[in-house]
Amino acid sequence: MSNTSSDITSLLARRRRLLGPTYGHFYAEPLHFVRAEGVWMYDAEGRAYLDVYNNVPVVGHCHPHVVEALSRQARTLNTHTRYLTDQPLELAERLLATMPDEIGHMIFTCTGSEANDLAIRIAKATTGGTGVIVSEFAYHGITETLAGMSPSSGTGQLGPGVFAVPAPISQASAADFPAAIQRCLERMQAANIKPAALLADTIFSSDGVASHAPGFLADAAKHVRAAGGLVIADEVQPGFARTGQHMWGFQRHGLVPDLITMGKPMGNGHPIAALAARPELLEQFGARTRYFNTFGGNTVSCAVALAVLDVIERQGLMRNAHDIGNYLLAGLARLAAQHPCLGEVRGAGLFIGLPVLATSAGADDSRQRAARIVNALKQRGALIGLAGPKADVLKIRPPLTFGRAEADLLLERLDQAIRDSST
Amino acid sequence: MSNTSSDITSLLARRRRLLGPTYGHFYAEPLHFVRAEGVWMYDAEGRAYLDVYNNVPVVGHCHPHVVEALSRQARTLNTHTRYLTDQPLELAERLLATMPDEIGHMIFTCTGSEANDLAIRIAKATTGGTGVIVSEFAYHGITETLAGMSPSSGTGQLGPGVFAVPAPISQASAADFPAAIQRCLERMQAANIKPAALLADTIFSSDGVASHAPGFLADAAKHVRAAGGLVIADEVQPGFARTGQHMWGFQRHGLVPDLITMGKPMGNGHPIAALAARPELLEQFGARTRYFNTFGGNTVSCAVALAVLDVIERQGLMRNAHDIGNYLLAGLARLAAQHPCLGEVRGAGLFIGLPVLATSAGADDSRQRAARIVNALKQRGALIGLAGPKADVLKIRPPLTFGRAEADLLLERLDQAIRDSST
Repeated sequence: MSNTSSDITSLLARRRRLLGPTYGHFYAEPLHFVRAEGVWMYDAEGRAYLDVYNNVPVVGHCHPHVVEALSRQARTLNTHTRYLTDQPLELAERLLATMPDEIGHMIFTCTGSEANDLAIRIAKATTGGTGVIVSEFAYHGITETLAGMSPSSGTGQLGPGVFAVPAPISQASAADFPAAIQRCLERMQAANIKPAALLADTIFSSDGVASHAPGFLADAAKHVRAAGGLVIADEVQPGFARTGQHMWGFQRHGLVPDLITMGKPMGNGHPIAALAARPELLEQFGARTRYFNTFGGNTVSCAVALAVLDVIERQGLMRNAHDIGNYLLAGLARLAAQHPCLGEVRGAGLFIGLPVLATSAGADDSRQRAARIVNALKQRGALIGLAGPKADVLKIRPPLTFGRAEADLLLERLDQAIRDSST
Repeated sequence: MSNTSSDITSLLARRRRLLGPTYGHFYAEPLHFVRAEGVWMYDAEGRAYLDVYNNVPVVGHCHPHVVEALSRQARTLNTHTRYLTDQPLELAERLLATMPDEIGHMIFTCTGSEANDLAIRIAKATTGGTGVIVSEFAYHGITETLAGMSPSSGTGQLGPGVFAVPAPISQASAADFPAAIQRCLERMQAANIKPAALLADTIFSSDGVASHAPGFLADAAKHVRAAGGLVIADEVQPGFARTGQHMWGFQRHGLVPDLITMGKPMGNGHPIAALAARPELLEQFGARTRYFNTFGGNTVSCAVALAVLDVIERQGLMRNAHDIGNYLLAGLARLAAQHPCLGEVRGAGLFIGLPVLATSAGADDSRQRAARIVNALKQRGALIGLAGPKADVLKIRPPLTFGRAEADLLLERLDQAIRDSST
């Protein structure tokens, strides 16, 4: 098999025939991958790409410790939580140990969407409210409920009772965020809707990565609680040590959430996710509602998640995310100083956003410029993504095993790609 | 580690402390499992239990072909569908080949809940309706939307626009089902709600297993379509050859659904699920809506599902489900003739429901009697579940590798358990 253009053409035709139009793909000419290891992915021709896109394989692709835990447990027992098994208890114990004392119970699901959907169910059931606040270009998942809370996805329309506030991306909007929440609560009250929750990705990934003035979330939370709502920290993207100084994004803000959701990196690609909660909320919810997730908390998924935690701890990946993140932020700032098409880099740890600017103050071509850079960088052998309402923020999120050599390689290739794409 | 009562007591205390009150468990004294193989599960003391409960490990626990495919692919590449990979295309091709020609496209998800939730989104988006019909004790999943369509779960309350019809469990209710749907559509129209879909588990698992007069679903579908709604076949429980003569439950009814969902057995315990659809529906949905499922259709999950299909085909498990299902149905009918506490057995293939009766016409103790039988059978070393609004239907669903020897063992132990539980 070779990754020739005819191979790609035939794969695309097959996709279109079998999977239909909801399946999109990355890049003007998409990639056909057959293998990956660590921070590298390999296409069908054997060409290597540095993976700086993906926050899922957090400990690197195909990490042997994770693969071994998966294989061993899959050979031994895969069963559900209506029997007693050791793995979900050990996993809950280790995750809860990374969280504030106020957070005491966990529920396992299979995806971040299931975790966020459950968080909303719990918030509505325990507050009696239906109003939910999200940021203007939020993404929280794919269920019917969450599509209405994800203006960046679905049809872009807000669901019933959902209100949006400007994302705290700029210094000014971060400073204004608590006041924006308060104004939103007043709009909600005027519409006669009782608040259930603020649902916030604690690094505002799809909005374009918010790293300014950590602390604004804790101030915003006070307003939400004063109005009777809960605070849900969506850690599906920032969680698991990515932001460098903490295991969870909410910890950067000095916030203690009521409900915490996690997913993507939790199983390094294996479908596992979870919700953590103040115990009194699950007492109220559980008294009236039955909840059983068939695959959630199965022995195999939990063994995988335990292995991911092992690697994060043993390889010191939180510290690495901090160190290499700062190194990369400094390098990207130097790059931005050299290239007028780049704005001010922002981020925490290895969660970085680098805005691409329009060609002039009046132009509206930042989206096209950013897409050209991403495609040119792919040609140079490195994969990154895009974020923000205009898809003009370079989204830089390598596995946390990323080293200095890889950071240098990325900076070099990005420099070249910017030159390539401007000619 | 030993499965002593102190071990169980301490595990239960740990569960309560870490996982909270939403986690229930099976059996008066729950089981602590550490290993499983084929149709057998082993507790911490090494005691073997015949698994006749679980429709998830469809090809038997820890099947070596499935474990090997999982391990091999996890060592090689785990990535998502925004890159081109071979596995989801091969899986879609093989699944679509088992379906009617009208069904042409697939979308992969991680759980049956995600698949059903997506089906509802597609039905609402393409019909412009919001009304959904379910059976009176249906179960379709755990998202906020589906909890409102699952009277057997959640809070038991129907969501907005959701209407329930009596489940077609008895001969009479099966014959009346199309007319019941028609009456329900009239109620919906009177409430000024436009129909979106009939959402039906094609064997009505949680309602208590419906096997009478296959064909009623196709007649019901005509009424739904005439009113502008779609028909969603929820194959999460009956699918993957369990009903013996067909790969999918809707095929027993001569029905061609608009949307088909599948899950539980698809990965033999690995979290993978899917939706299949008439292509024109996804064209309409995809034109206005973005949908991307991070883990859905990843290379590892698809490799697992492909291996499950291999085993179903190579080991002739559909034929086995039919043959052993009939053998078991005959044996259970003999048992029912001997034990006045048992009603008339029903089922298709290895999806069997055996009602437990109340002690007398006026008594309402069938639930307690059924629970006693299930607990006594567990003491005898075999695991089954309960279904139906009164949880008084013995739910018998072994892995499809179940043989005559295991069927005989189950019949013998069930006979003993009924005697044990009546003393």
